[in-house]
Amino acid sequence: MQFISEQRFDDGIREREFILGEVPGILWTPESASESTPAPLILAGPSGGGLRTMYPRLLARARHAAADGFATATIELPGSGDRPRIAVVDQARADLRQALRAGEPVTDDIVDRLILPLLDQSVSEWRATLDALLALPEIGGRVGYSGGVISLGARLAVVEPRITAAVLFAGSFVPRIIFEEARQVTIPLHVLLQWDDEGNDRQMALDLFDAFGSKEKTLHANMGGHTGVPQAAGDEAGRFLVRHLNSVR
Amino acid sequence: MQFISEQRFDDGIREREFILGEVPGILWTPESASESTPAPLILAGPSGGGLRTMYPRLLARARHAAADGFATATIELPGSGDRPRIAVVDQARADLRQALRAGEPVTDDIVDRLILPLLDQSVSEWRATLDALLALPEIGGRVGYSGGVISLGARLAVVEPRITAAVLFAGSFVPRIIFEEARQVTIPLHVLLQWDDEGNDRQMALDLFDAFGSKEKTLHANMGGHTGVPQAAGDEAGRFLVRHLNSVR
Repeated sequence: MQFISEQRFDDGIREREFILGEVPGILWTPESASESTPAPLILAGPSGGGLRTMYPRLLARARHAAADGFATATIELPGSGDRPRIAVVDQARADLRQALRAGEPVTDDIVDRLILPLLDQSVSEWRATLDALLALPEIGGRVGYSGGVISLGARLAVVEPRITAAVLFAGSFVPRIIFEEARQVTIPLHVLLQWDDEGNDRQMALDLFDAFGSKEKTLHANMGGHTGVPQAAGDEAGRFLVRHLNSVR
Repeated sequence: MQFISEQRFDDGIREREFILGEVPGILWTPESASESTPAPLILAGPSGGGLRTMYPRLLARARHAAADGFATATIELPGSGDRPRIAVVDQARADLRQALRAGEPVTDDIVDRLILPLLDQSVSEWRATLDALLALPEIGGRVGYSGGVISLGARLAVVEPRITAAVLFAGSFVPRIIFEEARQVTIPLHVLLQWDDEGNDRQMALDLFDAFGSKEKTLHANMGGHTGVPQAAGDEAGRFLVRHLNSVR
């Protein structure tokens, strides 16, 4: 993990851009984070668009988390931002747009081609990032996941035992196989669903929430469209992470 | 409104039982409530069983509300507790049990006979109670509704303009007509749904949430069975009321 830039904001938050292999990412740490008081870590999943597009929303989430004493890190998804395009995913995206334009159903085949190649690659990238971050002296304690591409969050919750709780944004297409994997998830989950998000399949989100095997799971549905998560709902997700990441430092 | 008993708890909360006409009820006021600092009021809707059965849960909710500076009041539903039985409702309840035992569908007819007679009577009783409570010098400011019989909360939200926000517990059968009335609800709503409540029709609850006309509405679904609302979910409902009742005293 190589840091390529660093800045410090007025509120003491330190922002560092990094590269891990060929994957760019950003790490935000609160002023309090140090070797003697390492900060628990939130892996901030993407919520649509590349890092550059998401940056203002990611920074807002990182500031919120820093106020609770947490570090936040994110990486660019395969095929996003300046990373090399993935032909099969681009084709699937074109097929998806075509289906939506034609008013045709979005088939499982399209969803699989759109999401699964990303997942297979990004899960190992997130895990490698986690290895590198936890080796930093100022990061330590519990790890949470918070963000979108709900399939990515679901699979990480299954395969990555260091993640102890997750806030999942339900707003993307979900391959059938993820419904199977969801039954193996056992960590506490806080699922955010924008009820009036017209581009999202609400029933798919409800079915996925139902499928999660976790004994402790909560679904918070709100109004406001795809990106319009109300502030109170963001605060509640923050409190969920505080409850689950703060027990052990 | 005639007060028939009074006690004060260690935390300063004053509990008074009252009778209004033939309707028994309970009022809890925080220590801070006075003519110079009147307390906003939460109408605590029933959550199953008569007042005596619900008392421990109602008291817990009233204490929580008092900590936020709110008074809480509740009344016995028609046909519940020591109030005269309502033959048509008793018959509907027997028909409901029979249908459930036989594994038959619960018809709209049964639901209408079970809920509508209660609603028609209790809505006017709750409104008369509200008149009497707001005449007390120690009660004033905004009014919220919080509790069960979601049809009662929905109808009160439509017909009673003094109610400015409502927490609704989705856990009872809903007559078809309430889905129509729900579209006329415009106040902020916070709906609690116990996802794994086997005696509750989850799809009915989701449909009703969808039907509410409010621009600001949130659905919080949790695990824990019919009466197992997690503490964090209760706290969130409390914060919703604080946000909406505290703006004007």
